[in-house]
Amino acid sequence: MGYELDNTIALLERTPASLSALLGGLPECWTETNEGGSSWTVSTVVAHLVHCEYEDWMPRARQILQAGEAEPFAPLDREGHARYKGGKTLAQLLDEFARARAKSLDELRALKPTAQDLERRGRHPALGSVTLSELLATWAAHDLTHLHQIARTMAHQVREAVGPWARFLGVMQCAGHSEAG
Amino acid sequence: MGYELDNTIALLERTPASLSALLGGLPECWTETNEGGSSWTVSTVVAHLVHCEYEDWMPRARQILQAGEAEPFAPLDREGHARYKGGKTLAQLLDEFARARAKSLDELRALKPTAQDLERRGRHPALGSVTLSELLATWAAHDLTHLHQIARTMAHQVREAVGPWARFLGVMQCAGHSEAG
Repeated sequence: MGYELDNTIALLERTPASLSALLGGLPECWTETNEGGSSWTVSTVVAHLVHCEYEDWMPRARQILQAGEAEPFAPLDREGHARYKGGKTLAQLLDEFARARAKSLDELRALKPTAQDLERRGRHPALGSVTLSELLATWAAHDLTHLHQIARTMAHQVREAVGPWARFLGVMQCAGHSEAG
Repeated sequence: MGYELDNTIALLERTPASLSALLGGLPECWTETNEGGSSWTVSTVVAHLVHCEYEDWMPRARQILQAGEAEPFAPLDREGHARYKGGKTLAQLLDEFARARAKSLDELRALKPTAQDLERRGRHPALGSVTLSELLATWAAHDLTHLHQIARTMAHQVREAVGPWARFLGVMQCAGHSEAG
């Protein structure tokens, strides 16, 4: 199956409402707790999604179409979520993510990338040459990697409470796998 | 922190709407594909959630409160999702899950388990003695294990399309961990 932009957009446009339905109004024992150490809370993950919406996906897509591989993408600040989180509540972050995502997708649809556009290349600071279609597929996969992380982080909070069932629950065996979020 | 029934219910009541927002109307390239071999599609996972709603959680909770450890729980048929899936569309399964979950939670709230009730014990056919609070925490963690699986299964579909980004995406490194779903 070739890369299909419509399938990517179908997923990207659903993530904000799905996260709002899952997390909106949920007690803080689920959303303001982490997996220990410097791992992220659910709220931090949502702030990271806001950050990426403003500084990663569409800015890089525009750079590929406008400048190709001439300059590498600006590296994404791994702590940049802190600038977007500030004193905001999770409800505010979820709303901001939904608005930012809708705006990103309006821009993407307006660009109407052709099949040739999707094969155009940019330069990632660590990965080297990448295509626009790889960037857009990664945008969708990045939503999924953080949904996966959110499920794992929340499950961590009931690790003791489930007692002997822990060994039947796959999410309890997942230690996280991200090299970079 | 002690086990808190309200926190469990808060999560359980949000899962159906979150899954409907994520999966409703999503193209079948995301929902009718699996991770290879006999692994489950997203639709199969939702059918499994329906199955558990009817045959696992509240039936076992009632058995603990009514009969304690006298008899073990009936083992859950690992292929029982097929009976619930039948020829149903994913949209129908999502609706059925939402209705079944709402009914389960109505029953749980009506039971009003006390702190003593939550420490009452039943007998799991494989795990042995378990408490009602462990069962209820597992119900929430089971939602999360399948949300984790859904994210991983969908991400698998773009494993090639993301190109070199795969190594930055934790979900692409997750091979699944469930001993039993």
